[in-house]
Amino acid sequence: MATDRFAQPIVALATPYAAGALAVIRTSGAGAVEMVDALFSPRGRLAAAGGYTVHHGRLVQPTTDSGGKPGTGVAAGDEVLDEVLATVFRAPHSYTGEDSVEISCHGSPAGIDRILAALCAAGFRPADPGEFTLRAFLAGKIDLTRAEAVQEIVSAQTREAHAMALQRLSGAVEERINDVKGRLVSLLAAIDIQLDYPEEDTGEIVVPPESVREVEELLRSLLAGWRTGRIYQEGVRVAIAGRTNAGKSSLFNALLRQDRAIVSAIAGTTRDYLEAPISLSGVPARIFDTAGFRDTIEEIESEGIRRSGEILDSADLVVWVVDASTGNADTVAGDADAAAEALVIERLRAEGRLVGAWNKVDLGAGGTPPPDFLPVSVKTGAGMDELLQALARTVLPESLAWTGEPVIDSLRQKELLERALQALGHVREGLAEQVPVDTIALDMEEAVRALGEITGEVTSDDVLDAMFRGFCVGK
Amino acid sequence: MATDRFAQPIVALATPYAAGALAVIRTSGAGAVEMVDALFSPRGRLAAAGGYTVHHGRLVQPTTDSGGKPGTGVAAGDEVLDEVLATVFRAPHSYTGEDSVEISCHGSPAGIDRILAALCAAGFRPADPGEFTLRAFLAGKIDLTRAEAVQEIVSAQTREAHAMALQRLSGAVEERINDVKGRLVSLLAAIDIQLDYPEEDTGEIVVPPESVREVEELLRSLLAGWRTGRIYQEGVRVAIAGRTNAGKSSLFNALLRQDRAIVSAIAGTTRDYLEAPISLSGVPARIFDTAGFRDTIEEIESEGIRRSGEILDSADLVVWVVDASTGNADTVAGDADAAAEALVIERLRAEGRLVGAWNKVDLGAGGTPPPDFLPVSVKTGAGMDELLQALARTVLPESLAWTGEPVIDSLRQKELLERALQALGHVREGLAEQVPVDTIALDMEEAVRALGEITGEVTSDDVLDAMFRGFCVGK
Repeated sequence: MATDRFAQPIVALATPYAAGALAVIRTSGAGAVEMVDALFSPRGRLAAAGGYTVHHGRLVQPTTDSGGKPGTGVAAGDEVLDEVLATVFRAPHSYTGEDSVEISCHGSPAGIDRILAALCAAGFRPADPGEFTLRAFLAGKIDLTRAEAVQEIVSAQTREAHAMALQRLSGAVEERINDVKGRLVSLLAAIDIQLDYPEEDTGEIVVPPESVREVEELLRSLLAGWRTGRIYQEGVRVAIAGRTNAGKSSLFNALLRQDRAIVSAIAGTTRDYLEAPISLSGVPARIFDTAGFRDTIEEIESEGIRRSGEILDSADLVVWVVDASTGNADTVAGDADAAAEALVIERLRAEGRLVGAWNKVDLGAGGTPPPDFLPVSVKTGAGMDELLQALARTVLPESLAWTGEPVIDSLRQKELLERALQALGHVREGLAEQVPVDTIALDMEEAVRALGEITGEVTSDDVLDAMFRGFCVGK
Repeated sequence: MATDRFAQPIVALATPYAAGALAVIRTSGAGAVEMVDALFSPRGRLAAAGGYTVHHGRLVQPTTDSGGKPGTGVAAGDEVLDEVLATVFRAPHSYTGEDSVEISCHGSPAGIDRILAALCAAGFRPADPGEFTLRAFLAGKIDLTRAEAVQEIVSAQTREAHAMALQRLSGAVEERINDVKGRLVSLLAAIDIQLDYPEEDTGEIVVPPESVREVEELLRSLLAGWRTGRIYQEGVRVAIAGRTNAGKSSLFNALLRQDRAIVSAIAGTTRDYLEAPISLSGVPARIFDTAGFRDTIEEIESEGIRRSGEILDSADLVVWVVDASTGNADTVAGDADAAAEALVIERLRAEGRLVGAWNKVDLGAGGTPPPDFLPVSVKTGAGMDELLQALARTVLPESLAWTGEPVIDSLRQKELLERALQALGHVREGLAEQVPVDTIALDMEEAVRALGEITGEVTSDDVLDAMFRGFCVGK
């Protein structure tokens, strides 16, 4: 990461590139306010403005040099790009810590293109993904756990995932890491004193093993939250499978309806009716109607049992729907389909990925359901609550449910926590084996360093590059 | 339109509902600032704020009554919804003319849902499509030609269409209409004097026919711009057709590449490779690669000549691609395909919808091209500029090109202009036939009324309902 890149002011569209009422274009960097001012009418208004002020005006593309006198309007030759609101931020009181202007314009892709082109022509560079947040980190406005939370907030798919990411943004993880690091640094200080003044050795144990264990406990509980964080952030894939006419598509539609948030409907979401997002007790799930592709059993039959794996293997959970009125695979003998179906169900059950739906119970049973199949009627709604609870339980066992404690969602943070814990394990072993304190100090320093990398006190350019590459542009 | 609906403050997402760096939620109405303040921390900040000020804070969902004391932070039980910037606008200095708060939050659909739900629970009503602009009109901030321009800006697909809509937003059409209306009102005033004081009749012609003709001319030139405006705003459909291996898909891809704006690429547009938007000298065009569906000729052959109509009839323009190295339909005798192809080409030519591409000229000709086919090589790029010019000329004849004069894009405005012109025609006839001036005054009043409806001086609720229904939410 060439740091001279950061000398140049950057620009990016911060809202999705699509037609809408408004769009926001973000700029940041030394001179950003003056550079936008040169395209703003009335001229001179922004350049003279303090931070946290909003200005109504026009963005213009000067076709001739209109003199640049403060307060002049749009010159005859100038091309009006849009009527806008410009919000001025002054360093260090901005998101990035730099001078910054946010331009709120009409949400027209054609207009956005014109404005971005004019700003780039005026000297702004298109921002890299995550560069605004990276600059905020480099300016010391936020640590890396908060920087990562910024992108996690954007990609959160349920209110629970959003709330967890917000907690991280507010510094919950940073505080815990800094607390642990503080304790380790105190212990290191005590070791240093003993090393500097060995004659004052009082025979006391400088590093009480309980202190190390306490610290390990704190880190372990944070690490334990990683799986929880991942499930809420990444979500799960739920496939709906079964024979023709078992009611797969009806179940798919019923699951969608039950989740239709009123507000999403207002905002005008559209749905793809073969794959759709729902929330299972806060865990974002994508449900797939395999009937939308091809009938599951037909596919198994024609291409063999191995082929079914390709359909269902990627699913974290498979809802297998059986038509109760005609009976299920286990009970209908002499049926080639039935044998194939029974094999697949057995495998899914063994892998803990099965939720069985014994559908159409309103029509009367044509067989006996296996004990783990839930009696439901998609048509009447009977048993649907129980089915949803079973889905949620399978997706998120009670041991992984969110308790409100800070959880981490970053693989980077998880690996650094493991590195710190490994170093602390060496510290404990060293204490037990009574190795010299300077050796113990080395392991302790390694733990402190790993924790410092989590918050970004110690970070290489490569790590930053890799981290911010996954961000969206404008963030 | 029940006007008491406008007593309630409204809320809407103003940016597209998708993940992005930022999202903007708009609120407006009496009490809007205080209502957002009740969910804002630090409490009391917004309520005390003047217009055009920006405030950093948190939106919270109070789970317990935290007292509402000014300056208090987040209470223990409160749920943080997001870290936001809130911009306060005070009536009448806002888009709607009402008190208003724009909330800039993280661009997370899950977070947007939470905030919208909290605001609705706090008493905001989800805004109808276009309701912010409708309120601006009702408050007298903008006339109807500007209100329509707002939505036209958003849906503009090329820089030219965007520039035309901006010109309308700045009031170019409104000014012209008001100018004409002013002239008519002066003429009416003169008639009134004559009617009131008939004894003072000096024998002068009160309504000189030249004045009427001048006014008609002004309105006619505005009306003439309607077709131009429509073409730039609505765009055209261009189909690429021809036989297998004529080079249809290569031409399709070449047309796309030539149009790839650098800024759109930055913003991360995705393209559907069977249908894609391009700009033909500023006219937005959607090009369809018919090869993407089925081979045109194969389809014609199998389903007959009538069927080909269904593929090509909806296109405003068809680029018929012929492989020059193997020859075209007209020159290869005894070929069933060739006969079908020749018929289709002839029909397209007769309808003025044909642009012929005599492709692969780099391979040497296998026949003689018809005189109106352009020699090109998609592979080497030869002749491509000429082809693009031919496309642009066919789509937009010189007579319809934009001269920079204000053009209208609204069917509503067009029909009202026609009504005004019809009434003015009656005025001229009446003058020629020397009918009594009070009859002439009635026709003149009808023209004034039609012009008043264009700007919205005179408008029924039904017209407003119909107009704003086509807007996007949040506008």
